[in-house]
Amino acid sequence: MKIVLFNDYIPGVVKDDRVLDVSGIVPWDAAKPQESLVNLIVRFEYFKSAIDRGLAYADSYALHQVKLRPPVPNPTKIVAAPVNYYLHQDEMNEQFNNAEYTIEKLGFFLKAPSSIIGPEDTVKLPFKDRRTDHEAELAFVVGKRAKDVPASEAYKYIFGYFALMDITVRGKEDRPWRKSFDTFTPIGPWIVTSDEIGNPNELGFRLWVDEELRQSANTKDLIYDCYKFFEAASAAMTLEPGDILTTGTPEGVGPIEKGNKVRIQIDRIGEFSVSVDYK
Amino acid sequence: MKIVLFNDYIPGVVKDDRVLDVSGIVPWDAAKPQESLVNLIVRFEYFKSAIDRGLAYADSYALHQVKLRPPVPNPTKIVAAPVNYYLHQDEMNEQFNNAEYTIEKLGFFLKAPSSIIGPEDTVKLPFKDRRTDHEAELAFVVGKRAKDVPASEAYKYIFGYFALMDITVRGKEDRPWRKSFDTFTPIGPWIVTSDEIGNPNELGFRLWVDEELRQSANTKDLIYDCYKFFEAASAAMTLEPGDILTTGTPEGVGPIEKGNKVRIQIDRIGEFSVSVDYK
Repeated sequence: MKIVLFNDYIPGVVKDDRVLDVSGIVPWDAAKPQESLVNLIVRFEYFKSAIDRGLAYADSYALHQVKLRPPVPNPTKIVAAPVNYYLHQDEMNEQFNNAEYTIEKLGFFLKAPSSIIGPEDTVKLPFKDRRTDHEAELAFVVGKRAKDVPASEAYKYIFGYFALMDITVRGKEDRPWRKSFDTFTPIGPWIVTSDEIGNPNELGFRLWVDEELRQSANTKDLIYDCYKFFEAASAAMTLEPGDILTTGTPEGVGPIEKGNKVRIQIDRIGEFSVSVDYK
Repeated sequence: MKIVLFNDYIPGVVKDDRVLDVSGIVPWDAAKPQESLVNLIVRFEYFKSAIDRGLAYADSYALHQVKLRPPVPNPTKIVAAPVNYYLHQDEMNEQFNNAEYTIEKLGFFLKAPSSIIGPEDTVKLPFKDRRTDHEAELAFVVGKRAKDVPASEAYKYIFGYFALMDITVRGKEDRPWRKSFDTFTPIGPWIVTSDEIGNPNELGFRLWVDEELRQSANTKDLIYDCYKFFEAASAAMTLEPGDILTTGTPEGVGPIEKGNKVRIQIDRIGEFSVSVDYK
């Protein structure tokens, strides 16, 4: 199932090129979309059959007629994998000498939830004189509270997957600063539940700046795959339902500039674009 | 005013050595203490006179008879200042060669809100073979939404102050990993509202491990004082009411071990202790 938030943070389900409004089927307070989403996630087994039954009667809209919102609008944390593809490590070393280690030595970092934006929103560059890069990533949302979960069990705790751009100012500052500016975490276009994804560790994905293909990779090349990263994060911290984990970017990162259109696409998930402007 | 959360996350006001229960005076859902606290914070001017009038009739308890809870239980983010005292920079360089820069070059980092614990709770050390340190800090809670606030205006956005221990595994990993383990952010004992603090940039504070005084410093030696740090953080990110900012630790950090009692004390705020055990 593809779960989307649209217009005034109304919950919907995407079928082909239409959005079906399920706000009459599941309990929902549009003023508290994250809280409502977490409630839906933790009781999804219960609500799923109600949604299935109700879809035939739900109002529907053409996808291009609605405003998509970030599908996870305000998690309690965004846990991010640093340097989780070897070829990305190589390019960071060549250009900036700042990826001395990979995830095995670095642990993880955090991004501020206030940096989240949705499809068709605009990334605002805070500096005209500093390089700011796109980083295409596969992300997922936690389905139930988790602590010390082994990789072999992690699939039970992942509710669904989506695409994430980890926008990053290059430099020597701590990662949370370089990656937490407002608008620096575009996510979308919707959450695809784990059952529709199958194996998340063999997904092709791509990112374009305007018409130029900049990143093209596959999650099979992750150093810590989705499940191993879940194990590592949950070994340190209690992960809450609705938290976001993002798996890190492959090679091909590069600068974005005012006027660019940045598009990300992941197999079995979908795609979305954002614009770029100055702050 | 000293605002405390106690027992089942009931809101209280501390007067001398007693806690006055104000749950009958302000709207409060003990199942959602952070949401209730944020509501109290953003409407505090409105609720303050009601609290003042109601205290004479409020139930009260001796402080030593109640269980104090973390006064800010679940912020949307914890923004932390890295290397914000020169003498702490010196000791980090001497011992670990890992504080090459100060806050002016490092920006800030983030800690996971899931790491918060309260007074008399227990810090759980995740590793028996890695040094884990105490770091005593002055912290504060944001009073209203803030973006691009200059230092000269920051005092209007700070609701109140409290003590924070930034527990830290030493090493080369990213700070969010080394500092976000569950139980790694003890805070307390209560929030002292800004009007009672006066100038936060001249507060003496101390930390003991068992009976040994380990840290003794004054916020007048901060590189970025409270207001300048607020400016720097709000230049990058929208700060939300209820978010925590913590100002960094002075010299004197050192290891903690199973069985230790760690006590922090800040002028005009108060003090609290935590225990230390293995995970």
